[in-house]
Amino acid sequence: MRLLVLGGGQLALMMSWAAARLPLDFVVYDPDPRAPAYKYAIKASDPLREVERADYVTFEFENVEWEVAEYAHKLGKLRPHLDYLRVKKSRIWEREALGELGVPTPRWAVARDGAEAMELAAKWGRAIAKVPSGGYDGKGQYLLPRERPPAEGPLLVEEYVNIAREFSIIAARSEDGDVYFYPPAQNYYVQGILVWNYAPAEAPPEAYRYVEKILEWRRYVGILAVEFFEDRSGRILVNEIAPRVHNTGHWTLETDASQFENHVRAAVGLPLRRPRALAPTAMVNLLGVASPPIRELERLGKVYWYGKAEARPRRKMGHVNITADTTAEAIAKAREAMRIIYGRKFPELVLKNYGSRQ
Amino acid sequence: MRLLVLGGGQLALMMSWAAARLPLDFVVYDPDPRAPAYKYAIKASDPLREVERADYVTFEFENVEWEVAEYAHKLGKLRPHLDYLRVKKSRIWEREALGELGVPTPRWAVARDGAEAMELAAKWGRAIAKVPSGGYDGKGQYLLPRERPPAEGPLLVEEYVNIAREFSIIAARSEDGDVYFYPPAQNYYVQGILVWNYAPAEAPPEAYRYVEKILEWRRYVGILAVEFFEDRSGRILVNEIAPRVHNTGHWTLETDASQFENHVRAAVGLPLRRPRALAPTAMVNLLGVASPPIRELERLGKVYWYGKAEARPRRKMGHVNITADTTAEAIAKAREAMRIIYGRKFPELVLKNYGSRQ
Repeated sequence: MRLLVLGGGQLALMMSWAAARLPLDFVVYDPDPRAPAYKYAIKASDPLREVERADYVTFEFENVEWEVAEYAHKLGKLRPHLDYLRVKKSRIWEREALGELGVPTPRWAVARDGAEAMELAAKWGRAIAKVPSGGYDGKGQYLLPRERPPAEGPLLVEEYVNIAREFSIIAARSEDGDVYFYPPAQNYYVQGILVWNYAPAEAPPEAYRYVEKILEWRRYVGILAVEFFEDRSGRILVNEIAPRVHNTGHWTLETDASQFENHVRAAVGLPLRRPRALAPTAMVNLLGVASPPIRELERLGKVYWYGKAEARPRRKMGHVNITADTTAEAIAKAREAMRIIYGRKFPELVLKNYGSRQ
Repeated sequence: MRLLVLGGGQLALMMSWAAARLPLDFVVYDPDPRAPAYKYAIKASDPLREVERADYVTFEFENVEWEVAEYAHKLGKLRPHLDYLRVKKSRIWEREALGELGVPTPRWAVARDGAEAMELAAKWGRAIAKVPSGGYDGKGQYLLPRERPPAEGPLLVEEYVNIAREFSIIAARSEDGDVYFYPPAQNYYVQGILVWNYAPAEAPPEAYRYVEKILEWRRYVGILAVEFFEDRSGRILVNEIAPRVHNTGHWTLETDASQFENHVRAAVGLPLRRPRALAPTAMVNLLGVASPPIRELERLGKVYWYGKAEARPRRKMGHVNITADTTAEAIAKAREAMRIIYGRKFPELVLKNYGSRQ
């Protein structure tokens, strides 16, 4: 059995940990020769040839080389379906697809250029302009009218949502249609980047129905992440989807059936596994940290270190998972971990949470 | 942080899985270039030089190159203490050490040669003769008077124990003296080789005291396995010790703090981790299996495949862990797994359990 993963970042790395015990050739393709996932994977050099050799192909991020994914799709090996990748090539296409499925999102419009985006913002009061593609972790987003969007090219313009909280649901779907939802996670972002989260959190029943609609759209296979806003009036809106394993699901490593395990299982046609026991768990990202204070953090939880070649500001270098008997205790320990990791930068990074995504 | 493991079999492989998430250089030395643990480890070529480079040194089997272990001990890097390896170089030394600690074992004597062993057996009724070193998985053992021991050299001769059951205790001890006992496992051997086991099983309080004596003898650091006999009169006897992670502890992979995790932690001076939740778990070895029936077995439990270069009869190629709500259910599923794995050979392999060790 041979599985090819397109992309070799920490998400593929953690898939390789889940796959290590299986009789499986785990192959990774990434243009970067220092990609973290190469540490425990077979290194693919010619991706099209590897698609031919593989039994199954999946991906760990959305910006894969399109022709490679398309070729895997043509050979019937790609999981999940190519259309989930297609809609992620443009924030506008993603909004259109969600709209067609009847999944609520923030009110949006397409502006032909920066000037038109500013006009919309003037009409709506405040708005967010987003470049259709290439932005992630908060990059390529502009709070209007305060920030100036690029003058050229179309932009997705969205209403400014008064966010009460952000949560996500990680779901798994197998090729025979079996679906499992991990408990929702509540997520805290600073400047568009996830700093920490915890699970289980609350989600209203309709949130699961929206996830299900997205799963059934093209008969999803693997792990899907759906990120939600809850605004101050209680509206539930889908912010974006990620057709892959997701940072807000790293806490599932503390179960006996993590998102990485279930993504690999689904990709190679194994039945889903439901976690046996779920403890309240908090996750803290190690952002821009060159070397983690391992002995202090391992007294609180488990450090997952990605072994990246170099640390840069905001870069996800690893994370810490902390389980506890209660959610309150997990959160308290997460705050302690953040103090250890970020020191004096702690309140700035953590207290600016609600609404900081926009 | 750099950890050198002497020996590169499946035990080192599973340590490497536990170590993968840590900011740790995991180095393996094994004379066999195809050793399974090389898959996820840095390959050591010059072991003495690697001892110098490493911060910590441990081992995954007893027959390590003595001068390498001794050098690591001299540099203060070896965990556990060298004396645990020393007593494992001879079954006679092991019995002597246990005797000095007041740990009960089967009655034993040393025979100068095969003829004297036969005399002892004649006196005791039945006996087991064991070559002092080099035997494992049931090799180098002779049931007297039926089997003929080697004519030359000394032999350990033991009373024949009427075994009611066999169990083991896996314990972890950190360098600051913290001790954790995993729940006991009940073990089923055929021809000296472990076929399956389950946990938690019963163990009387004195069994833990014996394990503690062995741990405190030379301030053990890491995972220690102690194998017990319970005879038909209820006597508890230590059969042997293993100063390392152990096949009867593979079930702990289903906890969030396996024997492999805790061995690595103790070896590098991290605090022990106590498993958060323990479910009844059965483990079935995949003996001599060239390619596991993965899809059938993954419906029952989790397959751990060691990726060995070739399958040979009796060779441990992998194992399956099965968790359940009750011990009875875990055992029933283990029997189902054995039927899937061994087919018609199932009853022979499994029903010859009690007392088959001798």
